[in-house]
Amino acid sequence: MSKKYIYFFGNKQAEGNGTMKELLGGKGAGLAEMTKIGLPVPAGFTITTEVCDLYYKNNKNYPPELSKEVEDNLLKLENLIGKKLGDPNDPLLVSVRSGAPISMPGMMETILNLGLNDKSVEGLSKKTNNRRFSLDAYRRFIFMFGSIAMNVPKEEFDKVFDKVKEEKTKKRLNIQHNVKIHDTDVNETELEEVVKLAKEVYKKYVGKDFPQDPKEQLWGAIGAVFDSWMAEKAITYRRVENLKGIIGTAVSVVQMVFGNKGNTSGTGVCFTRDPNTGEDEFFGDYLTNAQGEDVVAGIRTPVKLSDFEKMHPKTYAELVDVRKILESHYKDMQDLEFTVEEETLYMLQCRTGKRSPFATFKIAVDMVNEGVISKEDAVLRIRDKDIEGIFYPVIDSSQKDVLNKNYLVNGIGAVPGAASGKVVFTAKEAEDIAANGNRVILVRKETCPDDVGGMHASQGILTATGGKTSHAAVVARGWGKCCIVGCEKLEIDYNKKEFVVDGVLIKQGDEITLDGTTGNIYKTSLKLVNPTPPEAYYTIMKWVDEIRLLKVRANADTPYDAKHARDLGAEGIGLCRTEHMFFDTEERRLAIQEMIVADDTVSRIKGLNKLLPIQKEDFKGIFKEMDGFPVTIRLIDPPLHEFVPHEEDKQKELSEKINVPFEKIKHRIEQLHEANPMLGHRGCRLCIAYPEILTMQVTAIIEAACECKKDGIKVYPEIMHPLIIDKKELKILEEQTRNVADNIIKRYNIDLKYTVGSMIEVPRAALLADQIAEVAEFFSFGTNDLTQMTLGISRDDAGKFLPIYTDEKRTGIFVNDPFQSLDQEGVGLLMKMAVESGRKVKNNLKIGICGEHGGEPKSVKFCAKLGFDYVSCSPFRVPIARLALAQYEIEIKKKK
Amino acid sequence: MSKKYIYFFGNKQAEGNGTMKELLGGKGAGLAEMTKIGLPVPAGFTITTEVCDLYYKNNKNYPPELSKEVEDNLLKLENLIGKKLGDPNDPLLVSVRSGAPISMPGMMETILNLGLNDKSVEGLSKKTNNRRFSLDAYRRFIFMFGSIAMNVPKEEFDKVFDKVKEEKTKKRLNIQHNVKIHDTDVNETELEEVVKLAKEVYKKYVGKDFPQDPKEQLWGAIGAVFDSWMAEKAITYRRVENLKGIIGTAVSVVQMVFGNKGNTSGTGVCFTRDPNTGEDEFFGDYLTNAQGEDVVAGIRTPVKLSDFEKMHPKTYAELVDVRKILESHYKDMQDLEFTVEEETLYMLQCRTGKRSPFATFKIAVDMVNEGVISKEDAVLRIRDKDIEGIFYPVIDSSQKDVLNKNYLVNGIGAVPGAASGKVVFTAKEAEDIAANGNRVILVRKETCPDDVGGMHASQGILTATGGKTSHAAVVARGWGKCCIVGCEKLEIDYNKKEFVVDGVLIKQGDEITLDGTTGNIYKTSLKLVNPTPPEAYYTIMKWVDEIRLLKVRANADTPYDAKHARDLGAEGIGLCRTEHMFFDTEERRLAIQEMIVADDTVSRIKGLNKLLPIQKEDFKGIFKEMDGFPVTIRLIDPPLHEFVPHEEDKQKELSEKINVPFEKIKHRIEQLHEANPMLGHRGCRLCIAYPEILTMQVTAIIEAACECKKDGIKVYPEIMHPLIIDKKELKILEEQTRNVADNIIKRYNIDLKYTVGSMIEVPRAALLADQIAEVAEFFSFGTNDLTQMTLGISRDDAGKFLPIYTDEKRTGIFVNDPFQSLDQEGVGLLMKMAVESGRKVKNNLKIGICGEHGGEPKSVKFCAKLGFDYVSCSPFRVPIARLALAQYEIEIKKKK
Repeated sequence: MSKKYIYFFGNKQAEGNGTMKELLGGKGAGLAEMTKIGLPVPAGFTITTEVCDLYYKNNKNYPPELSKEVEDNLLKLENLIGKKLGDPNDPLLVSVRSGAPISMPGMMETILNLGLNDKSVEGLSKKTNNRRFSLDAYRRFIFMFGSIAMNVPKEEFDKVFDKVKEEKTKKRLNIQHNVKIHDTDVNETELEEVVKLAKEVYKKYVGKDFPQDPKEQLWGAIGAVFDSWMAEKAITYRRVENLKGIIGTAVSVVQMVFGNKGNTSGTGVCFTRDPNTGEDEFFGDYLTNAQGEDVVAGIRTPVKLSDFEKMHPKTYAELVDVRKILESHYKDMQDLEFTVEEETLYMLQCRTGKRSPFATFKIAVDMVNEGVISKEDAVLRIRDKDIEGIFYPVIDSSQKDVLNKNYLVNGIGAVPGAASGKVVFTAKEAEDIAANGNRVILVRKETCPDDVGGMHASQGILTATGGKTSHAAVVARGWGKCCIVGCEKLEIDYNKKEFVVDGVLIKQGDEITLDGTTGNIYKTSLKLVNPTPPEAYYTIMKWVDEIRLLKVRANADTPYDAKHARDLGAEGIGLCRTEHMFFDTEERRLAIQEMIVADDTVSRIKGLNKLLPIQKEDFKGIFKEMDGFPVTIRLIDPPLHEFVPHEEDKQKELSEKINVPFEKIKHRIEQLHEANPMLGHRGCRLCIAYPEILTMQVTAIIEAACECKKDGIKVYPEIMHPLIIDKKELKILEEQTRNVADNIIKRYNIDLKYTVGSMIEVPRAALLADQIAEVAEFFSFGTNDLTQMTLGISRDDAGKFLPIYTDEKRTGIFVNDPFQSLDQEGVGLLMKMAVESGRKVKNNLKIGICGEHGGEPKSVKFCAKLGFDYVSCSPFRVPIARLALAQYEIEIKKKK
Repeated sequence: MSKKYIYFFGNKQAEGNGTMKELLGGKGAGLAEMTKIGLPVPAGFTITTEVCDLYYKNNKNYPPELSKEVEDNLLKLENLIGKKLGDPNDPLLVSVRSGAPISMPGMMETILNLGLNDKSVEGLSKKTNNRRFSLDAYRRFIFMFGSIAMNVPKEEFDKVFDKVKEEKTKKRLNIQHNVKIHDTDVNETELEEVVKLAKEVYKKYVGKDFPQDPKEQLWGAIGAVFDSWMAEKAITYRRVENLKGIIGTAVSVVQMVFGNKGNTSGTGVCFTRDPNTGEDEFFGDYLTNAQGEDVVAGIRTPVKLSDFEKMHPKTYAELVDVRKILESHYKDMQDLEFTVEEETLYMLQCRTGKRSPFATFKIAVDMVNEGVISKEDAVLRIRDKDIEGIFYPVIDSSQKDVLNKNYLVNGIGAVPGAASGKVVFTAKEAEDIAANGNRVILVRKETCPDDVGGMHASQGILTATGGKTSHAAVVARGWGKCCIVGCEKLEIDYNKKEFVVDGVLIKQGDEITLDGTTGNIYKTSLKLVNPTPPEAYYTIMKWVDEIRLLKVRANADTPYDAKHARDLGAEGIGLCRTEHMFFDTEERRLAIQEMIVADDTVSRIKGLNKLLPIQKEDFKGIFKEMDGFPVTIRLIDPPLHEFVPHEEDKQKELSEKINVPFEKIKHRIEQLHEANPMLGHRGCRLCIAYPEILTMQVTAIIEAACECKKDGIKVYPEIMHPLIIDKKELKILEEQTRNVADNIIKRYNIDLKYTVGSMIEVPRAALLADQIAEVAEFFSFGTNDLTQMTLGISRDDAGKFLPIYTDEKRTGIFVNDPFQSLDQEGVGLLMKMAVESGRKVKNNLKIGICGEHGGEPKSVKFCAKLGFDYVSCSPFRVPIARLALAQYEIEIKKKK
């Protein structure tokens, strides 16, 4: 049983339809659907994406049956139109167009006017009674076929055209040298010359005459479209857009219609609503006497649809009908391409229109209000990028030229949004220079917790190493601060305070702009736009909250972050990292450093006692902001060496400030050095070794809670122990926690409820979750660490090899970066085991996630599937998590 | 229903028996058993270990029922003997003795002569007609009760005794000042004085008079024994001996018999066979007119049993009978304590005798030959330490004084055996100085693969950091080379070439001795003894090999190691670490370094081509040694930065030698730096990024195999990919491996079989083992890494906190160090899942282990239980693994 490789459409009938995007590509499916619903569409046929897949799988050979299928469909097309390809008297001309299942604008190739040769050009000329038009069509076809199918440099053809314009047209028209000549100024004789010269260029580069056989032309064009699928720019586009699992492009062979037959013809593109604002206004451009490529090339300036209406009121009315039909048919805003051939309208393409984040919300809400779609459908249409797009500052897109001129290099866009400012190289300088009212960009090889103050003071952060979950990225994301990481081309010289990239030198104080969405870096200060969410956003999020079942909390470490999180819809804090509180001021830094360099319990407690009132005040602030919502506080987690200076001069400074001998400090810090700090003395292992740290932290939490409660605030503290690997370990900590907490509660004489739980972030904890659940009142999955350990991949080092793992072309081992989107197969299996075995022991066990994945839609949905109670993520990602959870419920309901 | 806390014995009847060691302690069970089989044992009763457990669980309170049970049993004892405790006319005297389930020699306390007071001492005096004896017994009791039960410094009592000896006895006997006076020289009057003064000392320290109430004495003594269970030295002993899960000590209250009643009395200890050689000769010491403590105190020199025979032929004959009865009763060599009271023999203790490793083998084999025990029982009696003891050099134990005088510090004994030599601080110097015929000890803060040459040239290795599975320990263990790690007190100054420890300065060239068994370090060169295995060892190992079902392979990287492994019984190589081949010579080091600093494929291949012939020759040598046995070769595993120098001067040296600019080398090495190298760019990730490394290594393996096979050698290469996390990843590597290998085999025109398999050392691989088994022909568990990742513990950094986790007193979270003995609960669960899911897909999947655990008995048995095909370990541990596997089969059979 042979497979069907080609789908025909024409004369209001089509073998395919609009749902077959996977097989026919967006364009092929759109043409089939429009044909079916009776719109004026030129006839043609679509070769499926499967052929593209087989073509690559078989070393660039077509399946053997394809040849006959093309012949059959071509014959069918010729019969329908009543013309023959290559007919010297009245030739059928076709366009050969690419079309992937997902739109890849500008990435793929199209060849127009195929079927013309030295003879048929004259036939067309006679038939249309327009020799200039025919020659121009032939000229275009030679240019396109030569450059696209045969790799002749396009500039060579342009040169020929320019030469004729200069030497012949200009002379003929007696035009001054510095005046630009339009293509339409070139006359028949001159076009004949262009055709002749273009064929010579073709022969020079290809080594053969320009093909006169239309079949040879057709196969050449089909091959060119398939080859464009694996062109560098297409691969890059798919990587950047994270498009995976698409098997290839389809090829549509479509009867040509001509917008370049004079002033009654033209071509246009339009959107059924305004793609920038979302307003219900017909929006588009029209170019008289032109083929599609002219619009793209931007040689002449197109007119607005309102002008088109004035020029062609009848055709415009037809187009308005089409707009109405298609939008109500597809129930979404459409992006249309059309051609007018001597006042007759032809629809060439129809697809769901790309739109700005603002328009996305507006259109979705409007369509619900218009009764076109349901609230659920509206919610399903919002993507995480739309939410990002309405919150993060962006580069003003009107500066295209400036952008291109100042483009410097590309890194990994870790936190979206844009930022510009003066380059600084140390956290200290960032703080100082920012304090003087400057906007600064902190540029580092990598960042460490020491840098947090400077990072906070900066507009954006740029690092030479690291991936999307490196320290810089994680911290910046927490603040929604623009961040680009892993820009390996950066050669930073801290001593000279400069960096060099691709030969360009940037010195401290020079201005740069980061685009965290694309990862692009520009060597100037660009204008940024700072959006505010539209009304429609709030409408959608109201629906989202009605639909979703899981709670969304935020990871927040300060009262400020907590407030921000509440504003973005967080229903509690899922991760409050106590250690982040230690970096804000020098007083705090010194207190923690004093605690760390202490080499006996007495001096350690002395340091801790200085920290206690600071932490307590912070907790009070957080509890106040989270009045009525739970706050999960994780006790100290990072290895202690992350808190202390590693340079001798800074150690000496510390020595003076805390009055401890330098040698002692140096020795203690040396002792703290670890080969693999990620797997070292951190997490609850710190409180196991130094129980006094636990005592201080629990005291701060519970005293703060008691005092807040006395003030009438509803507090629900949840005390969480990190890096647990064992029930016995948790039991020791839990008993100490309760002991400290219960004594304080008794002292305050207040009825305060609190819970004690465990992070599940080490594989062993997931494996032994049933035992741990005997002690823990809640589980919170720390999927950053769990991913690192389950995969044996350090996220700080992954930048060196993980790109090879996620690169489809090199290995394709991972579909997604497992630090961005949860590895559901491996890490997810451990999570599933832990949830099931934990709930078996304690069926009301509260379960959440507080890793980076808690704000990534696919991962969030996976957590919902496992039966979590909540997800927790950076405040900025709270709306995204809310959305994903609502979408999950809708998708589940739809599947049933 | 109340529990029974006390077991009575006497008059040939006993409530307990020899099997009840757990409950009655070794001593109590031995006394009960000897009583039962009719031997002359003084009567008494044993308070169980459970009481000790309850005592500690209840905040040092006894169970309420105990008091009455003690009363009842004391009454029973008094009735049996016909005397009463504290009777002023004819008092019953008892000893109160400790006795844990496992012998802890010298660790626990015993109090003799209890029941004496100011009145009963006179009754005893009349009854025995020996006032001197009575006063001496009273004096001893006051000393023991005072120092042991009431913490009076023992020296204070000794001072009193010495004072009387000096001022009274010496004067009376008119003896010169410098002549030593024996206790037996002191007369009645003088002893009266001693008793008086001792009671004054007691009152001074305790604040009360010496107790005259025998019940008060008894309870004080019982408490003292229980308290001794948690004394520092007892805890230390249990930690050093890794004794876990013992709930406490028992207390035996036993009728006193007296070896100090003159020349017809005495006391002795003996072994039923020679504990040093294992020869079937009665072996022991006897001391006339003495109590047990005198033998231990070493005040007088005891005589040999042959002299005892001459002195007391009849009693000796009785003792010989007892020897025969007990050895055939217990079917093992026994350690006996006896007392002769006026020619009457009393047995005071009987337990399985400790013996030297040599004696262990000899006695086990002899007893099989004598028909006393089965071969299986003989095999069960051998411990891993016995095998270590007959292979590793040891410090000559006759140098006790020298040892004590030169003791420097204690570290973690990582590889047993001893070594002495001159201190050096760099691997280079180790090589140079050793090349001149010196024995050297390499002292480092930590070692890295760069140091391997110098480590090999050294007699022993000492590091200031790291645990038992740090780099130094693992490498040294592979060679069976003495190694002490984690000696944190060492303050090493590489510049000055010296280290300081506890104020003692050791400079380069000074001689030190390491005892890798105890972890002790001595500041001189001590005499070492280098044993050769006895005949009995080979007999036992023959039985072992007949019994065990799993194969034992070795981890070996060179032909030399391979030969050594074969000599020790390895049946193949389970882990050949190709990278270890790169360090032996400068030529090799330079070749790999050239490959690593290459920043493009062409120069990388240039470096690889230099390595190819070297690796190939090594593989040929290994295949030759392993003729007929499988060899599993793991492709390159460690992160590349481990192979290159990190100091600038060495980088400059390298730059000159391989003719690559210094700046380029420096930049490349900087690029290679990783935050957590354990989870970084290593393992198969290297071959994924640089496929040319795989090509070179597989070429070397397969060409070597083909050439060996042509020479008639039976080769079974197994190519193993490390750090696999995914089926797709393995598939890419497997295909490339087969592609390279099959082409070579075709070229050699030879029929060579090889297999391709996967290490399972990342949790994800264990979780997805079913998928990986679709590609892999074998699994080899790398339990070092699997433990690190499953527990989230870096073995190099674990030294800082793992001791707290394994310390029963501090947390007791782990029963064993999980890097020494497999974490069966956590890591073991992952292994079990992987074995089951892998075999479900491929039921003939070959499964082995090649981590450090492959030579640790408990872990080896666990692998057998999971159904492994083989275990692989360091050559030195091959006999231990063989033994453990045989013991596993015997234990399984016994359970059925």
